[in-house]
Amino acid sequence: MTKRITMAAATAGHAEGGSSLNAFDNALLVAGIGNINLIKVSSIVPPDVAIVELPKIRPGALVATAYAAITSETPGETIAAAVGYALPDDPAKNGVIMEFHGVGTQAVAERAIDAMLAEAFRVRGETIREQRIVTAEHRVARMGCALAAVTLLAEEDLL
Amino acid sequence: MTKRITMAAATAGHAEGGSSLNAFDNALLVAGIGNINLIKVSSIVPPDVAIVELPKIRPGALVATAYAAITSETPGETIAAAVGYALPDDPAKNGVIMEFHGVGTQAVAERAIDAMLAEAFRVRGETIREQRIVTAEHRVARMGCALAAVTLLAEEDLL
Amino acid sequence: MTKRITMAAATAGHAEGGSSLNAFDNALLVAGIGNINLIKVSSIVPPDVAIVELPKIRPGALVATAYAAITSETPGETIAAAVGYALPDDPAKNGVIMEFHGVGTQAVAERAIDAMLAEAFRVRGETIREQRIVTAEHRVARMGCALAAVTLLAEEDLL
Repeated sequence: MTKRITMAAATAGHAEGGSSLNAFDNALLVAGIGNINLIKVSSIVPPDVAIVELPKIRPGALVATAYAAITSETPGETIAAAVGYALPDDPAKNGVIMEFHGVGTQAVAERAIDAMLAEAFRVRGETIREQRIVTAEHRVARMGCALAAVTLLAEEDLL
Repeated sequence: MTKRITMAAATAGHAEGGSSLNAFDNALLVAGIGNINLIKVSSIVPPDVAIVELPKIRPGALVATAYAAITSETPGETIAAAVGYALPDDPAKNGVIMEFHGVGTQAVAERAIDAMLAEAFRVRGETIREQRIVTAEHRVARMGCALAAVTLLAEEDLL
Repeated sequence: MTKRITMAAATAGHAEGGSSLNAFDNALLVAGIGNINLIKVSSIVPPDVAIVELPKIRPGALVATAYAAITSETPGETIAAAVGYALPDDPAKNGVIMEFHGVGTQAVAERAIDAMLAEAFRVRGETIREQRIVTAEHRVARMGCALAAVTLLAEEDLL
């Protein structure tokens, strides 16, 4: 935690798996974060962090990540996960990340995140300068997972 | 995690919100820890750590935190969260943190924590030198959250 | 998280307790990891990490840990938790950790982990060079917990 977070990258994925945990693992692999150690955080973008495309991350790196995930073993069910971040006008202030998962479509998840980010900024008295929501939607065949994540990265986490 | 934990600070808060996650976010803001990244830990006070009043923490800091939280959307329901820490007679030994949340009052939560800390010290063969329990109680209007937390802090986390 | 993970150690334990959290705490003490701060991770063995017997860890250390735990207050019920890791032929690639917990025996938990690790390696296109599963099984008297864990350690975490 001494490492300095300088980048944030959002990603999402969905997959089937032979078990609930394998479906999660497979969705992480699809999202490009299957070979790192996710440390779940709630859920702030530090000030002065660059938003980047998901870089190549060192295998096994311990990466603070805000994420939403849902698994289902109900064939035919549609599940969705979403994360969104919003950054404030004032670059000295932090941004906020919100997570959502549920049975339903990614459109529903996206609207939920949008409302949550709006409230988070309203209560902080800040204005949103930039916002992005990433979603994953999965229609379950046998056992599936949808997940979305914002990783908080330091230089040393990169390959 | 290389950073050296030198302080522990307890806090609590409760709030309403437009969603479960916003209620949690709003309760964190009330508690003074709404703009940092909480990393959930279970749940030890390292030896030689100073117990301090909650300081100003750097926005976005990754802070190891033992916390209990409960959200409810049952109007009229009373919910409570509590955390407590106990420190041993022997300053070379670690302290213990216990968490509780549930439907009910903070008095119930406080008694639960007290019993849990007593057992934790009994099984370790240690005597409690100092103990403190912080609680939050919330009566739900529409969607509410109660939370209590002990943050484990390093110098570099402070503003 | 700047600290460099150089060791991984697996352990397991089970215990009764006066509350759900005390049963968990007591099982952690049995497993030898009751006086440290567990940070839950999902769940990769970094490349070039030595598999070691659980060393003495500094009290209060913040330790990235993949773990499975289950508590039950149904007298007579058998509960089990297991974690397993598999390491690849290619030492430059990461290993994978899988977790399982449920009502049932450790034999069931072990088979579940075995299948999950096999799938995790199949989807990565890697071959398993070495695999180990640790399990804990507990028959509940009043309130019990079974847990299994893989800790990811740095030199500085050791006593």
